[in-house]
Amino acid sequence: MQRPLILATNDDGIRAKGLRAMVNIAKAVGRVLVVAPEKVHSGQSHAITSTMPLRLRKVEENYFGEDVEAYACDGTPVDCVKLAMAHLLSGRPDMILSGINHGSNSSISVVYSGTMAAAQEGSLYGIPSIGISLLDWIDNPDFAPSISIGKKIVLQVMQNGLRHEVCLNVNIPAIPLSEIKGVKICRQANGTWIEDYDRRVDPHGGEYFWLRGKFVNNEPEAQDTDEWALSNGYASIVPIQPDMTSYAEIDRLKLEWKI
Amino acid sequence: MQRPLILATNDDGIRAKGLRAMVNIAKAVGRVLVVAPEKVHSGQSHAITSTMPLRLRKVEENYFGEDVEAYACDGTPVDCVKLAMAHLLSGRPDMILSGINHGSNSSISVVYSGTMAAAQEGSLYGIPSIGISLLDWIDNPDFAPSISIGKKIVLQVMQNGLRHEVCLNVNIPAIPLSEIKGVKICRQANGTWIEDYDRRVDPHGGEYFWLRGKFVNNEPEAQDTDEWALSNGYASIVPIQPDMTSYAEIDRLKLEWKI
Repeated sequence: MQRPLILATNDDGIRAKGLRAMVNIAKAVGRVLVVAPEKVHSGQSHAITSTMPLRLRKVEENYFGEDVEAYACDGTPVDCVKLAMAHLLSGRPDMILSGINHGSNSSISVVYSGTMAAAQEGSLYGIPSIGISLLDWIDNPDFAPSISIGKKIVLQVMQNGLRHEVCLNVNIPAIPLSEIKGVKICRQANGTWIEDYDRRVDPHGGEYFWLRGKFVNNEPEAQDTDEWALSNGYASIVPIQPDMTSYAEIDRLKLEWKI
Repeated sequence: MQRPLILATNDDGIRAKGLRAMVNIAKAVGRVLVVAPEKVHSGQSHAITSTMPLRLRKVEENYFGEDVEAYACDGTPVDCVKLAMAHLLSGRPDMILSGINHGSNSSISVVYSGTMAAAQEGSLYGIPSIGISLLDWIDNPDFAPSISIGKKIVLQVMQNGLRHEVCLNVNIPAIPLSEIKGVKICRQANGTWIEDYDRRVDPHGGEYFWLRGKFVNNEPEAQDTDEWALSNGYASIVPIQPDMTSYAEIDRLKLEWKI
């Protein structure tokens, strides 16, 4: 029997160390194809490229070690998944892994995340998909704890599957493995990015704006959220789905609106 | 008392006819500020620009008629909302309107939509926000039915408000107003984009890929979805929320996983 086929992608680009860490996880369970963005695509969410064409570049042999074929794509993380599914894979992969992201994708950040959009795209094809993020923004963090925990989660999903169109948003605290207390299955915390723009002037007198912000957990007391888990030494897993309907609001609108 | 202040944006860009239609709706209820992308940003979802700076261009006087101040931004639809909130508005707007989009944003398309991401971003600030889309992709469709229905929906939201962090995804069928049977409050239909890439070769022998696809409604019998409403002559309203947690899957994972 052939070993499972894993498609690995990310949003930090083909050169990111986190992608190498994810390939390490994927190799432990199966054969690996990498299709990742040529450049950094943080904060690209579920963006797709339809008004421009896409190109693929085959990455040099052994870039990710023996037997791993890899391509860089000049589009977004979701483009990578779509192009791999439509053009590079002869059959369906058994799993899609996205990350390991350099930085958190917990709480409301999931909405902006290219890492999680790629995983969600995989789930829309009916393929069990997992996005993994480490709560460390630096270029060269220690991915060993994330690899260890990631392997366990991948095995659980291989064995038990995932509900149709649901993928997993996994976040790992940036602490040594010995200090990580375990893995918690959570809901997405209600949180807010408090943001502003740093206004600057270029050498030619033109005005420009850089986004900067700070995350706030709006429900620090709630113990069933990803934010609580991460603040208390646990890795968090939030199952996420593409149905964005607010069913509670449907009921209210039907009752109150006269239209 | 001052009239309400409406922020209008879109994803088809500052020159799109749909944005003029939205300004028409906004003018009926209040004062209007327009901040929209300089270029077309379809399919940009919730993408934000944080690794590059943003610039703003003040649009010529009276471009949207008297008393409407307008800016073009070189970022995404969500960037437009963030930059307007942080830099251009002195207070909070009373409502954010996004669109009118040239083309549908029903069912799973909401996940890819820049129009709806801008509305959702508004709701994250706690501002009642509405995205409106017309099921017509052409440059110059008849927006009169959308304007008529849009005004009614905007008035309802002005009167009744919206649940915190919930915004409305409004889609309008491309038929004459006299044939539109009414407005239905719906859930997001389960649908799929069946896609492939058209493989082409450029004049220099390089390979490139264009995305093309076809939408399929996976539950055509269900009568409570946006797709059903739109196929049966109704405008659809789906309230959408930023919490992507699959609560059903939380229960199953807690029961079945050993980790």
